[in-house]
Amino acid sequence: MRNMIKITFPDGSIREYESGVTGLQIAESISPALARDVVSCSVNGETVELNRPILKNATIALYKFSDEEGKYTFWHTSAHLLAEALQELYPGIQFGFGPAVENGFFYDVMPADGQTISENDFSKIEAKMLELAKKNEPVVRKEVSKENALTEFKADGQVYKCEHIDQDLEDGTITTYTQGKFTDLCRGPHLVSTGLIKAVKIMSVAGAFWRGDAKREQMIRIYGITFPKKKMLEEYLTLLEEAKKRDHRKIGKEMELFMFSERVGKGLPIWLPKGTQLRLGLQEMLRGLLRPYDYQEVITPGIGGKNLYVTSGHYDHYGKDAFQPIHTPEEDEEYMLKPMNCPHHCEIYSRKPRSYKDLPLRIAEFGTVFRYEKSGELHGLTRVRTFTQDDAHIFVRPDQVKAEFKAVIDIILKVFKTFNFENYEAQISLRDPKDTEKYIGSDEIWEESENAIREACQEMRLNAHEEIGEAAFYGPKLDFMVKDALGRRWQLGTIQVDYNLPERFELEYTGEDNKKHRPVMIHRAPFGSLERFVAVLIEHTAGKFPLWLTPEQCVVLPISDKFNGYAENVRHELQILGIRCETDSRSEKIGRKIRDNEMKHTPYLLIVGEKEAAEGKVSVRRQGEGDKGVMSISEFGQFILAEVAKEKANLL
Amino acid sequence: MRNMIKITFPDGSIREYESGVTGLQIAESISPALARDVVSCSVNGETVELNRPILKNATIALYKFSDEEGKYTFWHTSAHLLAEALQELYPGIQFGFGPAVENGFFYDVMPADGQTISENDFSKIEAKMLELAKKNEPVVRKEVSKENALTEFKADGQVYKCEHIDQDLEDGTITTYTQGKFTDLCRGPHLVSTGLIKAVKIMSVAGAFWRGDAKREQMIRIYGITFPKKKMLEEYLTLLEEAKKRDHRKIGKEMELFMFSERVGKGLPIWLPKGTQLRLGLQEMLRGLLRPYDYQEVITPGIGGKNLYVTSGHYDHYGKDAFQPIHTPEEDEEYMLKPMNCPHHCEIYSRKPRSYKDLPLRIAEFGTVFRYEKSGELHGLTRVRTFTQDDAHIFVRPDQVKAEFKAVIDIILKVFKTFNFENYEAQISLRDPKDTEKYIGSDEIWEESENAIREACQEMRLNAHEEIGEAAFYGPKLDFMVKDALGRRWQLGTIQVDYNLPERFELEYTGEDNKKHRPVMIHRAPFGSLERFVAVLIEHTAGKFPLWLTPEQCVVLPISDKFNGYAENVRHELQILGIRCETDSRSEKIGRKIRDNEMKHTPYLLIVGEKEAAEGKVSVRRQGEGDKGVMSISEFGQFILAEVAKEKANLL
Repeated sequence: MRNMIKITFPDGSIREYESGVTGLQIAESISPALARDVVSCSVNGETVELNRPILKNATIALYKFSDEEGKYTFWHTSAHLLAEALQELYPGIQFGFGPAVENGFFYDVMPADGQTISENDFSKIEAKMLELAKKNEPVVRKEVSKENALTEFKADGQVYKCEHIDQDLEDGTITTYTQGKFTDLCRGPHLVSTGLIKAVKIMSVAGAFWRGDAKREQMIRIYGITFPKKKMLEEYLTLLEEAKKRDHRKIGKEMELFMFSERVGKGLPIWLPKGTQLRLGLQEMLRGLLRPYDYQEVITPGIGGKNLYVTSGHYDHYGKDAFQPIHTPEEDEEYMLKPMNCPHHCEIYSRKPRSYKDLPLRIAEFGTVFRYEKSGELHGLTRVRTFTQDDAHIFVRPDQVKAEFKAVIDIILKVFKTFNFENYEAQISLRDPKDTEKYIGSDEIWEESENAIREACQEMRLNAHEEIGEAAFYGPKLDFMVKDALGRRWQLGTIQVDYNLPERFELEYTGEDNKKHRPVMIHRAPFGSLERFVAVLIEHTAGKFPLWLTPEQCVVLPISDKFNGYAENVRHELQILGIRCETDSRSEKIGRKIRDNEMKHTPYLLIVGEKEAAEGKVSVRRQGEGDKGVMSISEFGQFILAEVAKEKANLL
Repeated sequence: MRNMIKITFPDGSIREYESGVTGLQIAESISPALARDVVSCSVNGETVELNRPILKNATIALYKFSDEEGKYTFWHTSAHLLAEALQELYPGIQFGFGPAVENGFFYDVMPADGQTISENDFSKIEAKMLELAKKNEPVVRKEVSKENALTEFKADGQVYKCEHIDQDLEDGTITTYTQGKFTDLCRGPHLVSTGLIKAVKIMSVAGAFWRGDAKREQMIRIYGITFPKKKMLEEYLTLLEEAKKRDHRKIGKEMELFMFSERVGKGLPIWLPKGTQLRLGLQEMLRGLLRPYDYQEVITPGIGGKNLYVTSGHYDHYGKDAFQPIHTPEEDEEYMLKPMNCPHHCEIYSRKPRSYKDLPLRIAEFGTVFRYEKSGELHGLTRVRTFTQDDAHIFVRPDQVKAEFKAVIDIILKVFKTFNFENYEAQISLRDPKDTEKYIGSDEIWEESENAIREACQEMRLNAHEEIGEAAFYGPKLDFMVKDALGRRWQLGTIQVDYNLPERFELEYTGEDNKKHRPVMIHRAPFGSLERFVAVLIEHTAGKFPLWLTPEQCVVLPISDKFNGYAENVRHELQILGIRCETDSRSEKIGRKIRDNEMKHTPYLLIVGEKEAAEGKVSVRRQGEGDKGVMSISEFGQFILAEVAKEKANLL
């Protein structure tokens, strides 16, 4: 008698299979194409190999390489393949850890005495990996006792594996995976066999301490990436190349947008004149966009009394890991660099009695905050120690949460549209209903606001997935991820409900019932921070900003040094009109100047020579459109200002 | 034989007098009116009594009450008159110190046991002072030995005077002044007699420690002011009343421009929504004004590595008295709250090689800085612990100093004109040529730049007086004082030459000679700081700002609650157009609403009732001009925007 089990799929559909069926067989039962592409599966939420027999009713999800989980399995097996190849190429090599990571995998290894591994060896390793992959060796899972595991890896001379087994693993939980002659200690899951790996690239080597402990041995960390198709590797390498060109640190330097200075300090960006124009342009755009939404902009000081953060609870939570308190020379005071703007805004809220009629009260600030990050973790403008949030705190009655979320979603989607972020995802972070202790606020209010967010998303036709247990202790939230032009994901934009700060600051309003009530607070930032947004925008656009925003709207190109003076006059006249203009007075041929400035994406090139200087005119070229004819300086000024005005009008 | 001496007057003219002539006699020789008004004089730079005989050739200046020096003498004698009156009214009273101050004088006294002095006693004291003044008692100077002085004041039971003589004074330098029955220990100078004092007002009493030492006895400090004419006192009291109404702290609160919070910290202003609009309006105005002057705006972080300020020298000079360094939780770093922007701007200068063609390089920033002040010295927005300078640092070749000074003077005078500061003074602070050790930089370069400033002022027709020895050690400067609508003087605007920082930061440019040269740096700030400027502007205008700047350009007044909804629509539509609008939806009669909002100086009142709501219109009233008729919302929008645009166009 066949023992049948029910398999439930992600879309809720159910099929019956014989007990013992595997993920691969299920895939085959659906379509041969799926069976070709599937790399792993999850059974009741746990990712496992495709050849693991399923014995009872289960929910299942099949993962392809295009899924995050599929990639993880694929690259995990690839790490083993790397190790297998290294074992053949470098006899006696010892292995540390070898996980899958965001883009590929690495393995930490210790070559035997006298061996080294460098960039020169990459092609050899890649060839060996492909050679082994072609054998399509099955990857075999085995449960082993701690004692047997120790014996086996000791026999292989793998001292790091032995230390790991000895110190970290418990008997009864240990598994190994074997392919060909290579066996690794591993929890899996893995591909069924290595033949799926069709393209291999070793990316880099670096030093890495065993267990990340600077007191232990330094090993060699080898990074690689693999794909199920050669074309995918080619595309990836092209993307990498493109990403490198678009690196905001590189473009920021070339375009002179921002700089860092060792003396000023690490992670403290200095906005150069052009970066400042860019930033001010973004601020102005957001101010314009916010006009119909009744925000009130404020400016609060960059420090706050320590007591402010004791009240808010931030000091207890983060005080030790933050920039340390600032003492005054007298008076025994302590101040903190402002790590967020909300406590200051709570003080503004509570400066006078508020009525239900005053709500929602929307306090906005381009608020500069300071957060300590280890210097090793700093990165361009995306990971800094000071940044300016396009922040706001909205104080609402509980029944206003949904309407306010809708308004903020509207703002955020307008921002995305303005900058051509056509692909974005939203995530609603909910509390874990099994662990209500962790969260502040009653069940009713959580349910009410989680529903409010859900309904706001639905009514705004925003496709948002939900994550249980991802809410902050102070309230649920909605986060936005955008995909840039290269398909990379960036977190931008957040809306968060907060029950905690109104409680701690004892904020109140008088209700229609003439009684005191506590408002709900909503934190929100469409850009997140100006620093981060500018970084993402640079990488998204490769520095080609729209005319209204770009810090260099036009450049005057004198055809020879003789006309440098006239070029400077043109620049000056345009600047007075509020047009951002430069001159290129290098002693280069005009063709070269045109090419260079087109490379820089300057929208308008104004060429000036004998005739133009004599007549007070400029020859206008529009980037990507070519010749626009000869105009007087003021004609061109009106022309470009009209275009800017039109672009700006279209933003809103 | 008459012994003649030569007396030189401030205008350089010389007259001959008999040796032994007094200041008063010289005044009489010029005109009886002058003799009536003169209160003291200076002989060879030392202020003395008018009856002091002049024995040798001398330069002399005659002071009237309207001169600072004259006021000082007048009020110093008035302090003695106060003491004389107190001695009669409160037998056994003891005296501490009694100097002239900026607006009048005070005397610290200790009444005998059982006596008190309070506001209730003011009129009695004033009457006694006037009664004594009427006697027109001569004020007689006497040189006394320390021993005699001690004996005399001990006999009077004046323990504080005795302590002062004993501890602070040297034999051979002690003088007393006597009028009627009252003798005071004093260096003078004084009026010749007390009869010049025609009007007396005791202003206030306060507690004050003897010698300002909190461990010593608390005395009573009595403040008073006197005038040579009754009318002057009346005018002064009116001015005080007006100043009280215009106090920027009071208006700032009423107009909801800014606030302070105990938890955020003392002296840390929070700009409320309307204050923020005002500040942003000023920033925008200045950006517009700077357009023709080729400034480059930057944004630098609010902190800097301690080493930055060690390099600049600020740490050694001010480190101990500043906000103390900020430590990071790891990595052993130290940062300072940014006390000024110049070191950051030097880092921007030196980020790449500069050529003589790049100069002047003008780096501007609305730079927020932090400076520790004792909490007792904080005052509204004029004395704060954080403020935003409208700062710039201009790097020039030495031969460009004059042209650049002219450009900056031009900017500053435009700012004054924009805000109707019609009276201003300028002061050139020069180095003391007798004490060149104190200053950095060669004699040649000082002479060159002092001359440059002098010539710049002349060529800009700016009347500037010179003060020797008032230059900073790093260079000469030009400061501006404005008189506000009440005739009070405020320091606003500064231009300073700096040879020091370019040296310390080893700044260079390549000259036309292809050699390395050091640039000169010019610090400048037309407003000084936004905080200070806003405070002065409030006190100057009593909060009545021009339309383009005022944070509330119009207010919608529904004639009854029924039209609150329509009023809110009107506000919203105007806000979308970028017009700053409020609604007054209080349940008050329309007449009251109109009066209240006229009091608030809101330029446009928009009255809406049945008819307006039905037709989508507003009835427009212009402050000070009355009815402007009925307009549709968008008509009014275009109308007010046109007026704002016209005002703004007139600014530049």
